[in-house]
Amino acid sequence: MPMGQNLLLLAPSAAVLALLFTRYLAARVARFSEGPPNVVEIAEAVRQGASAYLRRQYTTVAGIFAVMLVVLLLLSRFGYVSVWTPLAFLSGGFFSALAGFIGMKQATNSAARTAMAAKESLNGGLQVAFSAGAVMGLTVVGLGLVHISFWYYFLSWFYQGDTAVVMTTLLTSSMGASFLALFARVGGGIFTKAADVGADLVGKVEAGIPEDDPRNPAVIADNVGDNVGDVAGMGADLYESYVGAIIAAASLGLSAGLGLKGTVLPIVLAGVGVLCSIAGTFAVRVGETASQGALLAALRRGVYLAAGLIVVLTYFLIQVLVPGHLGLYWAILAGLVAGIIISLVSEYYTSSEYKPTKDIADSAQTGPATVVISGLSVGMLSTAVPTLVVGIAILASYYLSQLGGPANFDLGLYGIALAAVGMLSTLGITLATDAYGPVADNAGGIAEMGGLGKEVRERTDALDALGNTTAATGKGFAIASAGLTALALLAAFRDQVAKAMADQVIARDGALATLGKAAAFQKVYPGVVASLDAKVTLLNPQTLVGLLLGAVLPFLFGALTMGAVGRAAQKIVEEVRRQFREIPGLMEGKAKPDYRRSVDICTRAALREMVVPALLAVVMPIGVGLLLGVNAVLGLLAGATISGFIMALMMANSGGAWDNAKKYIEGGVHGGKGSAAHKAAVAGDTVGDPFKDTSGPSLNILIKLLSMVALAFSSFILANTLFR
Amino acid sequence: MPMGQNLLLLAPSAAVLALLFTRYLAARVARFSEGPPNVVEIAEAVRQGASAYLRRQYTTVAGIFAVMLVVLLLLSRFGYVSVWTPLAFLSGGFFSALAGFIGMKQATNSAARTAMAAKESLNGGLQVAFSAGAVMGLTVVGLGLVHISFWYYFLSWFYQGDTAVVMTTLLTSSMGASFLALFARVGGGIFTKAADVGADLVGKVEAGIPEDDPRNPAVIADNVGDNVGDVAGMGADLYESYVGAIIAAASLGLSAGLGLKGTVLPIVLAGVGVLCSIAGTFAVRVGETASQGALLAALRRGVYLAAGLIVVLTYFLIQVLVPGHLGLYWAILAGLVAGIIISLVSEYYTSSEYKPTKDIADSAQTGPATVVISGLSVGMLSTAVPTLVVGIAILASYYLSQLGGPANFDLGLYGIALAAVGMLSTLGITLATDAYGPVADNAGGIAEMGGLGKEVRERTDALDALGNTTAATGKGFAIASAGLTALALLAAFRDQVAKAMADQVIARDGALATLGKAAAFQKVYPGVVASLDAKVTLLNPQTLVGLLLGAVLPFLFGALTMGAVGRAAQKIVEEVRRQFREIPGLMEGKAKPDYRRSVDICTRAALREMVVPALLAVVMPIGVGLLLGVNAVLGLLAGATISGFIMALMMANSGGAWDNAKKYIEGGVHGGKGSAAHKAAVAGDTVGDPFKDTSGPSLNILIKLLSMVALAFSSFILANTLFR
Repeated sequence: MPMGQNLLLLAPSAAVLALLFTRYLAARVARFSEGPPNVVEIAEAVRQGASAYLRRQYTTVAGIFAVMLVVLLLLSRFGYVSVWTPLAFLSGGFFSALAGFIGMKQATNSAARTAMAAKESLNGGLQVAFSAGAVMGLTVVGLGLVHISFWYYFLSWFYQGDTAVVMTTLLTSSMGASFLALFARVGGGIFTKAADVGADLVGKVEAGIPEDDPRNPAVIADNVGDNVGDVAGMGADLYESYVGAIIAAASLGLSAGLGLKGTVLPIVLAGVGVLCSIAGTFAVRVGETASQGALLAALRRGVYLAAGLIVVLTYFLIQVLVPGHLGLYWAILAGLVAGIIISLVSEYYTSSEYKPTKDIADSAQTGPATVVISGLSVGMLSTAVPTLVVGIAILASYYLSQLGGPANFDLGLYGIALAAVGMLSTLGITLATDAYGPVADNAGGIAEMGGLGKEVRERTDALDALGNTTAATGKGFAIASAGLTALALLAAFRDQVAKAMADQVIARDGALATLGKAAAFQKVYPGVVASLDAKVTLLNPQTLVGLLLGAVLPFLFGALTMGAVGRAAQKIVEEVRRQFREIPGLMEGKAKPDYRRSVDICTRAALREMVVPALLAVVMPIGVGLLLGVNAVLGLLAGATISGFIMALMMANSGGAWDNAKKYIEGGVHGGKGSAAHKAAVAGDTVGDPFKDTSGPSLNILIKLLSMVALAFSSFILANTLFR
Repeated sequence: MPMGQNLLLLAPSAAVLALLFTRYLAARVARFSEGPPNVVEIAEAVRQGASAYLRRQYTTVAGIFAVMLVVLLLLSRFGYVSVWTPLAFLSGGFFSALAGFIGMKQATNSAARTAMAAKESLNGGLQVAFSAGAVMGLTVVGLGLVHISFWYYFLSWFYQGDTAVVMTTLLTSSMGASFLALFARVGGGIFTKAADVGADLVGKVEAGIPEDDPRNPAVIADNVGDNVGDVAGMGADLYESYVGAIIAAASLGLSAGLGLKGTVLPIVLAGVGVLCSIAGTFAVRVGETASQGALLAALRRGVYLAAGLIVVLTYFLIQVLVPGHLGLYWAILAGLVAGIIISLVSEYYTSSEYKPTKDIADSAQTGPATVVISGLSVGMLSTAVPTLVVGIAILASYYLSQLGGPANFDLGLYGIALAAVGMLSTLGITLATDAYGPVADNAGGIAEMGGLGKEVRERTDALDALGNTTAATGKGFAIASAGLTALALLAAFRDQVAKAMADQVIARDGALATLGKAAAFQKVYPGVVASLDAKVTLLNPQTLVGLLLGAVLPFLFGALTMGAVGRAAQKIVEEVRRQFREIPGLMEGKAKPDYRRSVDICTRAALREMVVPALLAVVMPIGVGLLLGVNAVLGLLAGATISGFIMALMMANSGGAWDNAKKYIEGGVHGGKGSAAHKAAVAGDTVGDPFKDTSGPSLNILIKLLSMVALAFSSFILANTLFR
């Protein structure tokens, strides 16, 4: 398979190129000035707060990783997992954390520079903010492919052709990435939204001072939060999405009947996507006097150029690598198209240019209750079309991938996994347009606090508004790909369990052992699969109970994370009220608030509250497996995937629509800023904050992490379950 | 089987006894005076409004039933369903409507009498309101058992032993009941919550006048709404739950290996439950000077007495009817116990005596946004334990029912269905304590509008508060039983499809036909079941897509119904504002508002908006079946059941908790009535209104109706599906 191996080199090469390119982009950003001393001071405070939080977060998580490491070492000691599993797990977590950290560093270095550049021109601001976003996007995909390539080469060399072990070990590295990402998303999400909600409730609503006013004691915490939640959290999150989708597809590629090429294809496809993303970044430029519409068009041009390139290049890739299987090309395309449609649907439901968000704004005239009712209703409604589209994508990629050959169940599942990779192949640039948002948001905050003037603030607001649209689009991609990847992992779990069961049967039966490993396997496997599948029907009580428990998990997870934000926000509210009350001259701008206290409250709340939800993801699949058997685990994974996918859509879209309905009113409709309708809309936005930035995005990680934990512990569960 | 047939007589006898007993209760209520002329006038206005609405609703629904009738006649003409199916469908709808209508009549006749009786003593009020509730409870179970018994005897006589046809026809009568109930719940729910939300938003929040103030132009509509939604809607709803659970169990009883006794058992069990419920009503009485705590204790005594009796009597019933199957007794008990635990959990999460609701009240101090966040979080959290309990009940009833015999899949499924019947066996009395709530609520409204004085209002408020607790308990039962019944119907669908597929195979193969029907069936059936089950695994793409589409349905349904309430409420708000503005002297109490306009707006909105959600339930299973095959339909039903069950729990408990948090603040906490915290809590309650009284309860009906439609159309789908 020299062709495959040669092409495989494309992945690390593209990754290194992407990482080098981020250094060029970072240097370009660094050339801009951070502005006058008072602005530098603010930027420095945010930088330090964000670094301090991430250090404490990573320290806490390191403790939990250490426990998991001991567990994995024990599993490895007793032969349930390969010897490299513990290290792969650690490295996955490390790279995921690194992706978030680099993104955060770049973002905190770019916010003030964006504000200063926006002083010159709107386009200047766009260039700096977009470059910062591109550093993040390309760091995520670059590090991801370096990570996958390294382990793939190393394990292939170490295990010399036993690709099954290579894949299960790779999957554990992906588990490490997901485990870390869950902490980053939940912890960062709680931090950012507690600060945001707390700052808004007292500042905007009670005290009547503008957003990002330096008199607000929670304003630095709010800006720190954007960086640790929306940037570092998102970076770790999409790192795990990307790595998870590729490894899941590669793992299913083993059984797809394509030989080693099945595992190579998704990795190479991702490499091609990285190149297309880099090319796309060059298309994001506008004239100096560009309008806001032209800015959005520029961002879109970049994304669509990358998508167009991948459509063309993938065709040749398939023809070269697996010439008889053009159906796989259509499966990949199905994923790409589904991702685009879903992101357009998200935009429709969350942009104030369309009816749903305008209706929410209208309902603000009758108070906060009707805003909440209509926002929830829009969020629920917005789940229908994406679910239908994902359903069609599942069927299309399943059947299209088998095109021209005999019916092949495993090839069909592989097709679904490839669709997810197709959807994420241009992540480098879609993430760039997404991560650009928080940078612009922070630039606005710095402009306000640093007193850079009304014009700068207006420009950063324009950049930020654009960011809301790209964020909605990005979330659509993230959720849809998470759903497909989780299904692929579900299939991988079934695959792995069936193989382990076959091994058990062979080990128990002396006569089979004399046949030789391969022949015995061939003889036993079909029967094992049939008996497993017979237990995974919807009517099997354990499977059904698994489905129920899986479906309730996202609700429980949402309750814990929403509750955490609510509790932490209330503490911030009390602290801000206390400072307004106790610090003389604060409201008059004569005294400075104690910013550190708010940062500290958020930090402690985030670290304390992130642990239980994350542990749920580890405990549930193992517990259900030990008590109710592997078929119940399959039910659990399917239930969680389906309900988590729908909940994530609802939360992202409700949250986005509320946010933009508020902005729409701030634009002057229904009485504009300060009106009763505006107050009602702010309440809606506040409810939407934990929806769209804490609970919702965490669900994407949860549904994959559950499967990965199940995969890592599958041998252990099989050997020790009470229910066979 | 003379023993079974003799025992079967118990069901219609108990039913007739229950219906006679309701006449005695109604006569007892009628002995009380309706009060002075102005009170009679108000009561009359509510009565007329409710009757007028129900007439219009039933007229609209009759049109849709006519269309369904034509469809069923065509299906019958082409041999897809039995000749009696169309009539059974109609009669199911008729009885369901009748149950709601009688309950509504009794409630509107009892509200003023409750207020007048409360003038004498708290106990007097309780007796009248509870009698009205008991009329509703016993009417529902009485009519239900008359309906089932009549059709069972008639069809058994007509088809002379072909019990399979008897059961499928009975199931269609249940579909008629569910179809009507969905309209009644959705239409009534939209009416009542639009009026409630609209009246509260302008009256309480904007104009600052008390609830039920006669100056509010929406106040009559609000009281009418309680009767058409919370009473008539609930009556039709629980009628379909009751009938559906019994018929589903009877239908599965056919394949359980118990002969005809399997179908007889659930019907007789229900009959025993009716007798226990009647006995329970006698326990609901207190001394003239009873405290509120004593009132609740009295209601509980009634429910627990009935439950205790059924525990004892069922044991003997099983010993007499199916002596070798004591396991079935434990399955029934598992259902009963699960129902009680779930209702206690609902009470914990929604009563202001416990932490969750108090936390929501605390969060009201920081405004409406935090109230909504904490309420949603409590609602989501409250789904975890009930889901776990239902999961345990499924496993327990599945395995316990097979106790002492060989493993028997069909007997296990029958056990799950019996658990649902066990849960609902004492519906006569649990519904009485539930339906009593709206009567007390209306009595309060009439006391306020009629100026009966502060003391009466305080007493009716005490009765109403009690009603909130029993409503939460009742909802727990309704949701849990709906979940189990939907699973039983899912199993019934699989059963029926497998049989129909076997018939197809036999019809196609001439050689098999020569064997004789029974022998051919015996030969073909196991293979058909195996091939069907192989397609109902979680990994099958059609099944998976079915699951996805099913899981999204409750979200779509929730969006449509919530949106409908929001839109209609906004119209009411505008109308009330207009009347306040345009009718001179209204606020000073010198002029009367135009109550009819508000009633009319609610009526038109309810009738227009109830159609699309209801049609979804009919179109989806047929459409999915034709396009994607029967295994996708099974996925659809399972997905909708699971996600609908969890959503219904969340909505009911969030709604109940918000309502009681508001009442808790009104009791004087956090500043009491009129404080900022109270305003925030009112907003939370307003969001909760459509949750708990429109969208949430409709989901219980939806998940069963989907299965019943699938059952009725199964032969048609099998013959015409594109995907085999």
